[in-house]
Amino acid sequence: MRKDRKNSEIREVSIQTDYTKHAQGSVLIAFGETKVLCTAMIEDKVPPFLKGSGEGWITCEYRMLPSSTITRKFRASSKGKIDGRTMEIQRLIGRSLRSVVDLSALGERTIWIDCDVLQADGGTRTTSINGAYIALCHAVNKLIKDGNLKKSPINGQVAAISVGIVDGEALSDLCYEEDSSATVDMNLVMTSKGEFIEIQGTGEERPFTKDELSQLLSVGEDSINDIIKIQKEYI
Amino acid sequence: MRKDRKNSEIREVSIQTDYTKHAQGSVLIAFGETKVLCTAMIEDKVPPFLKGSGEGWITCEYRMLPSSTITRKFRASSKGKIDGRTMEIQRLIGRSLRSVVDLSALGERTIWIDCDVLQADGGTRTTSINGAYIALCHAVNKLIKDGNLKKSPINGQVAAISVGIVDGEALSDLCYEEDSSATVDMNLVMTSKGEFIEIQGTGEERPFTKDELSQLLSVGEDSINDIIKIQKEYI
Amino acid sequence: MRKDRKNSEIREVSIQTDYTKHAQGSVLIAFGETKVLCTAMIEDKVPPFLKGSGEGWITCEYRMLPSSTITRKFRASSKGKIDGRTMEIQRLIGRSLRSVVDLSALGERTIWIDCDVLQADGGTRTTSINGAYIALCHAVNKLIKDGNLKKSPINGQVAAISVGIVDGEALSDLCYEEDSSATVDMNLVMTSKGEFIEIQGTGEERPFTKDELSQLLSVGEDSINDIIKIQKEYI
Amino acid sequence: MRKDRKNSEIREVSIQTDYTKHAQGSVLIAFGETKVLCTAMIEDKVPPFLKGSGEGWITCEYRMLPSSTITRKFRASSKGKIDGRTMEIQRLIGRSLRSVVDLSALGERTIWIDCDVLQADGGTRTTSINGAYIALCHAVNKLIKDGNLKKSPINGQVAAISVGIVDGEALSDLCYEEDSSATVDMNLVMTSKGEFIEIQGTGEERPFTKDELSQLLSVGEDSINDIIKIQKEYI
Amino acid sequence: MRKDRKNSEIREVSIQTDYTKHAQGSVLIAFGETKVLCTAMIEDKVPPFLKGSGEGWITCEYRMLPSSTITRKFRASSKGKIDGRTMEIQRLIGRSLRSVVDLSALGERTIWIDCDVLQADGGTRTTSINGAYIALCHAVNKLIKDGNLKKSPINGQVAAISVGIVDGEALSDLCYEEDSSATVDMNLVMTSKGEFIEIQGTGEERPFTKDELSQLLSVGEDSINDIIKIQKEYI
Amino acid sequence: MRKDRKNSEIREVSIQTDYTKHAQGSVLIAFGETKVLCTAMIEDKVPPFLKGSGEGWITCEYRMLPSSTITRKFRASSKGKIDGRTMEIQRLIGRSLRSVVDLSALGERTIWIDCDVLQADGGTRTTSINGAYIALCHAVNKLIKDGNLKKSPINGQVAAISVGIVDGEALSDLCYEEDSSATVDMNLVMTSKGEFIEIQGTGEERPFTKDELSQLLSVGEDSINDIIKIQKEYI
Repeated sequence: MRKDRKNSEIREVSIQTDYTKHAQGSVLIAFGETKVLCTAMIEDKVPPFLKGSGEGWITCEYRMLPSSTITRKFRASSKGKIDGRTMEIQRLIGRSLRSVVDLSALGERTIWIDCDVLQADGGTRTTSINGAYIALCHAVNKLIKDGNLKKSPINGQVAAISVGIVDGEALSDLCYEEDSSATVDMNLVMTSKGEFIEIQGTGEERPFTKDELSQLLSVGEDSINDIIKIQKEYI
Repeated sequence: MRKDRKNSEIREVSIQTDYTKHAQGSVLIAFGETKVLCTAMIEDKVPPFLKGSGEGWITCEYRMLPSSTITRKFRASSKGKIDGRTMEIQRLIGRSLRSVVDLSALGERTIWIDCDVLQADGGTRTTSINGAYIALCHAVNKLIKDGNLKKSPINGQVAAISVGIVDGEALSDLCYEEDSSATVDMNLVMTSKGEFIEIQGTGEERPFTKDELSQLLSVGEDSINDIIKIQKEYI
Repeated sequence: MRKDRKNSEIREVSIQTDYTKHAQGSVLIAFGETKVLCTAMIEDKVPPFLKGSGEGWITCEYRMLPSSTITRKFRASSKGKIDGRTMEIQRLIGRSLRSVVDLSALGERTIWIDCDVLQADGGTRTTSINGAYIALCHAVNKLIKDGNLKKSPINGQVAAISVGIVDGEALSDLCYEEDSSATVDMNLVMTSKGEFIEIQGTGEERPFTKDELSQLLSVGEDSINDIIKIQKEYI
Repeated sequence: MRKDRKNSEIREVSIQTDYTKHAQGSVLIAFGETKVLCTAMIEDKVPPFLKGSGEGWITCEYRMLPSSTITRKFRASSKGKIDGRTMEIQRLIGRSLRSVVDLSALGERTIWIDCDVLQADGGTRTTSINGAYIALCHAVNKLIKDGNLKKSPINGQVAAISVGIVDGEALSDLCYEEDSSATVDMNLVMTSKGEFIEIQGTGEERPFTKDELSQLLSVGEDSINDIIKIQKEYI
Repeated sequence: MRKDRKNSEIREVSIQTDYTKHAQGSVLIAFGETKVLCTAMIEDKVPPFLKGSGEGWITCEYRMLPSSTITRKFRASSKGKIDGRTMEIQRLIGRSLRSVVDLSALGERTIWIDCDVLQADGGTRTTSINGAYIALCHAVNKLIKDGNLKKSPINGQVAAISVGIVDGEALSDLCYEEDSSATVDMNLVMTSKGEFIEIQGTGEERPFTKDELSQLLSVGEDSINDIIKIQKEYI
Repeated sequence: MRKDRKNSEIREVSIQTDYTKHAQGSVLIAFGETKVLCTAMIEDKVPPFLKGSGEGWITCEYRMLPSSTITRKFRASSKGKIDGRTMEIQRLIGRSLRSVVDLSALGERTIWIDCDVLQADGGTRTTSINGAYIALCHAVNKLIKDGNLKKSPINGQVAAISVGIVDGEALSDLCYEEDSSATVDMNLVMTSKGEFIEIQGTGEERPFTKDELSQLLSVGEDSINDIIKIQKEYI
């Protein structure tokens, strides 16, 4: 049994908006000891494949600062290439945010989402999505306030949680220690309506059964609902 | 309604073993018009993090030949970097195969899996897993036959299928045309016991409901069973 | 003395056209155990240096699949750069094909030639040229059939052969084993009229005499004639 | 005349130690609106050129987060290379810190200094040095506390300040707006004894006279003394 | 005491103009045993950030030939990236030359300065600046002579010298041996009017005092005057 | 008809040995207006594939300085990769020199050959080989003089020449202007005994006949003999 919280309970969440001044949206978000700076910056152009289409784009870069982990993490720029895990995560964050935005309504502009992990203790990708969504809302509000958009192109609320099977139990919002001993590891990205945007599960140590899948979805859904409520206070 | 096959029916499968002579396992596999050359080659050393551990490793590289797609696909080596989609896929294939192998029992050697897509028509990553599993078995048999291993370290059978929601229906083994119009896209990697190794679903166009998830898992499971049977003939 | 064939005799040749469906020309060619997939794909633009010139371009990429050799060959994209040998070969193939094409008559389009070696047993560059020529012809025929070109810009037929001095004798179409023990190594690219497009000879182990040069040209010319005849059946 | 502070006066300084938990030294430092996270992490090995020498090493990486500037700054890892300005700055920080450390007394270990600019408003390199020195002291204290070092190899205190000629006057600690209109730009790195470690001056708009050099050194020295005092409170 | 020359005396200087024929300015310059080929080439376009501005640009590339040093120096192109020292130096040379040129008066063209060190014996960056200034003048003269410019946009003369503290004495124009034992190392770039363009001093072994700074500036100024005179003969 | 020299006549050759002081062999060689600095430097280790074999290695790097051509040539290091032509040339030079050296007799050391083109006017690769051979001899003599080798491992003399068909005539040692209008282009590397080391001919504009090949070999051989004589004076 988990010592300090229920299986479907998330860690203490702290959110600080307007953390830096240059980005249109800037959110320092923490789930327990995991701290991520999520920013949203607006650029008045789009990637080549959208030029002239009238549609906008949302893209994401995710990085861990070298000092965010116990053993110093080498920078992608020093090694000369971005590793596969980083690519997967930033693609996931970008897809998750785009799924709740009407890109035509955004107009021909790009919103750059940057998620820089200041301190890692499990769940950095889901914490990033949760903070990035708030930063995105702030950037869009800024566009509206400045008269550059009439109404918000955001048509849904998105939250994410990591779940896993540890010692035979389905747990939500795993810290690093729990994550290290999980036999099954799953990330869920969902909307405020209880629908799925992404579901990514891996049987790291052993395959998992349909019954385990059900338990994971159940604890995850509870946590998603809690996060959705917290996010609403900062949008 | 699908014209030529049932929703949970897979495309025609063709498998040619020993397709090339240098690799210990070499399988040309086709699901419909999707053709992949899957090879397994044994190297008598392991990556640095395993040196001296007594454990082996299985790693995968996935590529699409430039001529495998309608519009010529630029080579990673000409652009100077591997794109995110390619990285995600080769990491998925590697993880899937490692999950059914006892790496300690494999001994300090690496099995390199190469999946080169000769012709793409949807489902290249799942076709790759299905063929790579056979190639892996052949390479392991070679190790046993040559007296380098006493018994097989493979402790499970793995198969994969792509499923998706097209025009409101859950379909299995999507061809390119179906894949292009799918609102939900999911890849399943499962064992012969009906357990999950990987489940990766994305609501590309819109979020998906719990009910849709159930339907997708259902058609997928049927297809996995069919593939498992076909693979057995070639192992 | 060579066991199984005469000194100027080529290995068994097999050619399969329309091997894949997306490329306008797609040829699987084998010289003995050497198998190369040669494709030609048409793109409706040209490199910057030809923009607005009215001229077209033919360019080539050559790669060996990792499983094509006895010891697995690392991919250029994993090492981050293309090695010198690969560059030399793809430049040679491109030059050879361009030499028999009237690039002005081709119009402002690029024909991409890709030669992917599926299995290597000596002579991969010459086999590539022999197959690529057929693929090129098919792609040009497609342009004519589709009404995009009135007449063929191809004004010659090109074939290639590797020759070498092994145990003091001039041999044609060396397999890997013969190539490894050759003291002189030469590649000839010629036309159906018996003229030279390229001649590249290297005294790997020792310099070679004018007399040896004559012998090499002689066995090579015989083989070129044989290849020219075979190609004609597939154009 | 400067509105809000004297010409030799530094901006408001805020320092937060132990800002993150994994690094042995972790300092969030702000000079006005410029905020830098400076960390020091210990690694028990040295670069190849010091192996077996008994000497240690201190190295630095400096980066600006993409959201730290008004216009989003592209990451070095996305562009594939580190720009010249970044290289210059991280070399300067590394040299500055090494100049007050007895590397033999440090023993064969590396201290990695990372300076990640969260928000930029002028003087990021000097702010980095000021914070990095404190982080370095904390990391060394940790080595001593853990019994890995008997006494500190740090034999001096180092502080840095940017100075410049703006509208004909020598100013200290320039904010971005002042820096943009400076005709002469100089960075000073000095010790608590008033000696120079680095002096780097550039006549960006026009050459500068010996008299102007004297004025710059004078305001700079005053500021250095103030910084030295502030640092002492956190070491 | 220095054996063969006074502390503020420069080494023997030799200058050969029009050393190669393709560059508009081509100067082989030697300070003692340090030999650098400095060329200036005119290109009729500017970097993107100046397009349409009517302004020109001057940029510099600096390299040491592999054989220019005692131990062969690896080429940047073989290692795949330019090292920090090289970047710093070429940025310094570019800045120094731009500071005496009215870029608006140059018009929308780029002057490429290349400084290739044929033989290194200390002071390669200052020798490069001294030779590059002459090459720049020649290229500008060519523009005027060919009727492409009415009058010279060069509005000052620039010279550079390295100075340092060796065995407690301030010396000018250090050769490699002196440079290796210098405790303080400084590069000065000045105009013919005795004003500073760049001052870069580093306390490599120990910090330096204000008094030492004065001595260094004093010997440096004498040498700058000597170099200014020599340059005038070749402009 | 050629204006100033016979068809088989080489341009004026000038050779300056000991041109720089750090390399063991350093030769500035000019064929007409083509000037190349060829150096040979000894390193006391070998590439990984020769470690422990007792054999030595000779490797070559070839580059054109940016100012060596009419239009400034971009550096490989600025573009991030070496182009195919450069790779081909440096591989050719390396192979040519290795073919006349007994690598076992050289012992486990590498001789680095660097050919840096200071000024290009046709025939840079053949001029490089001619100068590099002399530099190699000097480096080997140095090894013998210093007692590091008992006798020379060089067992042949190597020279190179470019030949081509211009206006229907076979010419030797083409300058840039002639090279630009050549329909056939060939490089010959031969020994003092009249044997071939390399023969590389390309029908750039049109295929060439056997008779043309004979003429090219004939003028080339004459020139090779002249170069062999000149080289002997400097070895």
